[in-house]
Amino acid sequence: MAFGWIDEQAELRRRAGLVRALRPRAADTPLLDLASNDYLGLARHPEVTEGAARAARTWGGGSTGSRLVTGTTELHAELERELAGFCGFEAALVFSSGYAANLAAVTALAPHGSRIVSDAGNHASLIDGCRLARGTTRVAAHADPDAVRKALDGHRGPAVAVSDTVFSVDGDAAPLTGLAAACREHGAGLVLDDAHGLGVLGDGGRGAPYAAGLAGADDVVVTVTLSKSLGSQGGAVLGPARVIEHLVNTARTFVFDTGLAPAAVGAALTALRLLRREPGRAARAGEAARELHCRLTAAGLEAVRPDAAVVSVRAPSPEQAVRWAADCRAAGLAVGCFRPPSVPDGVSRLRLTARADLSGAEIERAVRVIGETRP
Amino acid sequence: MAFGWIDEQAELRRRAGLVRALRPRAADTPLLDLASNDYLGLARHPEVTEGAARAARTWGGGSTGSRLVTGTTELHAELERELAGFCGFEAALVFSSGYAANLAAVTALAPHGSRIVSDAGNHASLIDGCRLARGTTRVAAHADPDAVRKALDGHRGPAVAVSDTVFSVDGDAAPLTGLAAACREHGAGLVLDDAHGLGVLGDGGRGAPYAAGLAGADDVVVTVTLSKSLGSQGGAVLGPARVIEHLVNTARTFVFDTGLAPAAVGAALTALRLLRREPGRAARAGEAARELHCRLTAAGLEAVRPDAAVVSVRAPSPEQAVRWAADCRAAGLAVGCFRPPSVPDGVSRLRLTARADLSGAEIERAVRVIGETRP
Ligand SMILES: Cc1ncc(COP(=O)(O)O)c(C=O)c1O
Ligand SMILES: Cc1ncc(COP(=O)(O)O)c(C=O)c1O
Repeated sequence: MAFGWIDEQAELRRRAGLVRALRPRAADTPLLDLASNDYLGLARHPEVTEGAARAARTWGGGSTGSRLVTGTTELHAELERELAGFCGFEAALVFSSGYAANLAAVTALAPHGSRIVSDAGNHASLIDGCRLARGTTRVAAHADPDAVRKALDGHRGPAVAVSDTVFSVDGDAAPLTGLAAACREHGAGLVLDDAHGLGVLGDGGRGAPYAAGLAGADDVVVTVTLSKSLGSQGGAVLGPARVIEHLVNTARTFVFDTGLAPAAVGAALTALRLLRREPGRAARAGEAARELHCRLTAAGLEAVRPDAAVVSVRAPSPEQAVRWAADCRAAGLAVGCFRPPSVPDGVSRLRLTARADLSGAEIERAVRVIGETRP
Repeated sequence: MAFGWIDEQAELRRRAGLVRALRPRAADTPLLDLASNDYLGLARHPEVTEGAARAARTWGGGSTGSRLVTGTTELHAELERELAGFCGFEAALVFSSGYAANLAAVTALAPHGSRIVSDAGNHASLIDGCRLARGTTRVAAHADPDAVRKALDGHRGPAVAVSDTVFSVDGDAAPLTGLAAACREHGAGLVLDDAHGLGVLGDGGRGAPYAAGLAGADDVVVTVTLSKSLGSQGGAVLGPARVIEHLVNTARTFVFDTGLAPAAVGAALTALRLLRREPGRAARAGEAARELHCRLTAAGLEAVRPDAAVVSVRAPSPEQAVRWAADCRAAGLAVGCFRPPSVPDGVSRLRLTARADLSGAEIERAVRVIGETRP
């Protein structure tokens, strides 16, 4: 039978204890959430959801076409202007997802004959971008500007280094200043995925590139997602106007994809304005993460020091990580569980996310549950 | 400078008259719309936009995480159940876009050592899926089951043929029965992208695979988008439960992407229910397209006979296609304009889309404008 081979793979997964299943959640759950990427607690904020509702009513349920045909509304343009301004870039371009934004940025900036240097810990969407791009990819050791320098060495023609600013699995930050220096020595561009930095790092949440003084540079391009701190869906590429114009003309996930739905544009725009008005939210997310880490460590757990809002806790094995997460859930706490093949190093972990609206009591309760359920 | 090479490409585009620019639209435009993919006229339907608004208020502005972590709500599960049931498949899986659904289906079903046979006229997202997949791709002549047969010949191991059901540029239909026969002779799977068939073809809009008697077959997988007939955003893969389980476990654009925003899920679900209640909408979209084609041909224009709701009209050159579309717009009519590099054969055309809610007078007016502005 055509798809019979699938069953063998399923059987292998079952034996390895690596089966994933969907667990639909209800609208109101009593679980304490340390699993979502809703870093600023804005996804359920009444202003944000009303922003989504209003946009749907005004502009429709969908954008109805490619952004080059009927899919660009004045609302999209407004979000692009405000996002670029907030993060300190000349221009921005909104996509249907952060994944699509990453595919676009990498493929459009790595033409035939170019070299891409990709951090070993990069997000799947950047890796897929490298695989789709016509340029040739070299994988550089994790968070290592010297490795980037070496990988760029001797290449002539266009080149880019590509890195997450905050790595999604362990929550550690990339050495942005060092990366920029390595790129500049070689005249290479730098593409940074600030999915986990926007809203958390930099003055008022302007992101990691802004904090590193790289915002607005003519050799830096940043991708962001609207689906984490901004509580919505979608992604964007920020950079020099010439790069944005280049993407409009050549990026396949822009040209051949339906524009982001108005409700998602409206939610992200409302969240962005709320963040401008309440800039303290950004710092609070980071503080909550540091408090979480401090208490976890004090409880004897092996946790990675957070550079943003993600806190990673090592688990002894995939099976024990799954059981640990399930035991947390049974005790009222939702945590993420990362295990092969979703982790680059094969190490399973609980992935905790801090939120700006976590109270001290909630953090305490979370740490108690994690400690009590530890394998 | 790092991105200096971009300027040369921009200059080439300018000289070739192939520059694309965004033209944000207002919420209310007086233009007659023959450019969007809103085939059933549901994107602005008050029930659909209210479905989006209600979902945002109930479930939040975003889904807050990967569908494997916090991003699956009961609303996603409801849409998946109803979509699978409507189209006649065992199971369905919702993605953040049709593009992402296509990347997932092709990559997950074409493992290392497999063969992919891809129609020469396939959509960009299927092509990118082929390029990302570990299997080896052979491009088959357009809409030609014998070409598929030949391309499958002699291969051992997993194989899939991949095709749009209705091709996005010319609106012509794929020979589904012939493709299925060719695949079955070789024990290959068939992956069909029904982006332009769902809501238009098949009993009550159940889609082209349903019309061809392929729905629910254990060797057929269908992808759809929620962004055209269903007036929303997002995509889905429909197929045997084993295939869907396989995607949940292995498809990178599922595992590593934030779940579709609740508002988009709500809009699509409401539109689907509306279509079930008013099944006549599907046939009306097709009738409008055929009337449009008939009148265009009577006016002496070279138009492709529509198999669904897309009507393609040949233009003499890219420059003239652009001018023609602009002249239509100046006369109050929005039409699509496809030109290199977005057309596989290098032929520029106006791309018209019919809608279920187009009146006879509107069709007449559209044809008059297109005739009067013809180059
Ligand atoms: C680092 C990183 N980049 C990109 C993405 C993709 O963004 P989105 O989920 O909005 O498509 C994610 C998460 O999903 C991510 O963690
Ligand atoms: C044939 C086809 N497949 C897939 C897609 C992608 O769907 P979406 O725009 O919802 O991502 C489109 C159009 O955009 C299409 O025309």
